[in-house]
Amino acid sequence: MLKKAVVLSSGGLDSTTAVAVAKNQDFEIYSISFDYGQKSRKYELRSAKKVARFFNVKEHKIFKIDLRTLGGSALTDIINIPKRRSLKHIQREIPVTYVPARNTIFLSIALAYAEVIGSQDIYIGVNAIDYSGYPDCRPEYIKAFQNLANLALKMTISGKKIKIHTPLINLKKSEIIELGIKFGVDYGLTHTCYDPDEKGRACGECDSCILRIKGFKQANLKDPIIYKKNMF
Amino acid sequence: MLKKAVVLSSGGLDSTTAVAVAKNQDFEIYSISFDYGQKSRKYELRSAKKVARFFNVKEHKIFKIDLRTLGGSALTDIINIPKRRSLKHIQREIPVTYVPARNTIFLSIALAYAEVIGSQDIYIGVNAIDYSGYPDCRPEYIKAFQNLANLALKMTISGKKIKIHTPLINLKKSEIIELGIKFGVDYGLTHTCYDPDEKGRACGECDSCILRIKGFKQANLKDPIIYKKNMF
Repeated sequence: MLKKAVVLSSGGLDSTTAVAVAKNQDFEIYSISFDYGQKSRKYELRSAKKVARFFNVKEHKIFKIDLRTLGGSALTDIINIPKRRSLKHIQREIPVTYVPARNTIFLSIALAYAEVIGSQDIYIGVNAIDYSGYPDCRPEYIKAFQNLANLALKMTISGKKIKIHTPLINLKKSEIIELGIKFGVDYGLTHTCYDPDEKGRACGECDSCILRIKGFKQANLKDPIIYKKNMF
Repeated sequence: MLKKAVVLSSGGLDSTTAVAVAKNQDFEIYSISFDYGQKSRKYELRSAKKVARFFNVKEHKIFKIDLRTLGGSALTDIINIPKRRSLKHIQREIPVTYVPARNTIFLSIALAYAEVIGSQDIYIGVNAIDYSGYPDCRPEYIKAFQNLANLALKMTISGKKIKIHTPLINLKKSEIIELGIKFGVDYGLTHTCYDPDEKGRACGECDSCILRIKGFKQANLKDPIIYKKNMF
């Protein structure tokens, strides 16, 4: 019998690659996506569903948690997503797209899900190289979460250990894409853009699009998704 | 200007005492309660609202998060709440009322709330003496969460620190009650029972009631709430 893994899946490029890695490491996949009031949830969740089908996961949960209730900024109520920032700028400053404690909340819920299904392995596609400087993507943060997880659950009292897998954390975006291609990912299924148009086409100008475009360029591969202005 | 504190408030005896302690330590109170699909949510949330009014909190959020979505046990879908267990039994074995990762999820959301309002102080009424053996009530767990919190947020990158306050963690139930009385808590507002009747009256026989009844007895005080059978 295959071991079970919970994989956080947003429908984006990184988390989809994480699903592929977990699948390739012979886990039975339980993916979880969050409907948290994010602006592009329609397209993200549509992609996450496609990815779940593509990888034939055992179960795909869409968990509703409306972070807008707490107020504050967030991908949830931003009117002006930053556009056309330089890579240097992207990596130097945490942008307004930061959502307070997002990964902590998502990992906590994934942890509960893991205990419910009897899994000790959680995959998250965080990356600390080609990223937006979010604090909850760094290796030291993940280590602290794993330490917490091993004190938090009933199953850990009897000595079972939780492992938080971060297969992409030290990869460049181009290396993530190459890894995914190796494991058969169809990146045409994924959604990356913070600010898609009404047809779900990527803007090509938000931080997330810029990092993605750079990744495909460096990997010398064509990005299969459609951008708004047919610019790439 | 008073400093802000986020206080987790379930409407129960412990968390209500935590609200009183935070208030007494001169914080402006932002309380947060969770509507997570628990069986007794109607009475818990009613009590939490009364407590918020009683202590004149600045803001009281009721955050909806349906943990039943994940399946599994939980206060959420238990048919038979354990009854009339001895104190020894209560403290030796984690009961079916355990909800996977509950405090981790609740603290994570409280953490997001703290960052949104600009607070560095979170109060939680966990107790590791007269409790049900839940792993996420122990001092080592709280310490690990605080460590995580200090790596998780944008504000901690600029050097701000989060403190998780657990004023009750080493107190006996009777000492918690005495402390609350000193700070003016009206325990008649609180709801403790896992299995109330249709009028919200406590059963007097679940673990939670047993610990409460013992506390009032040891403190030599009369419990102002009404029990089902008028037994106490």
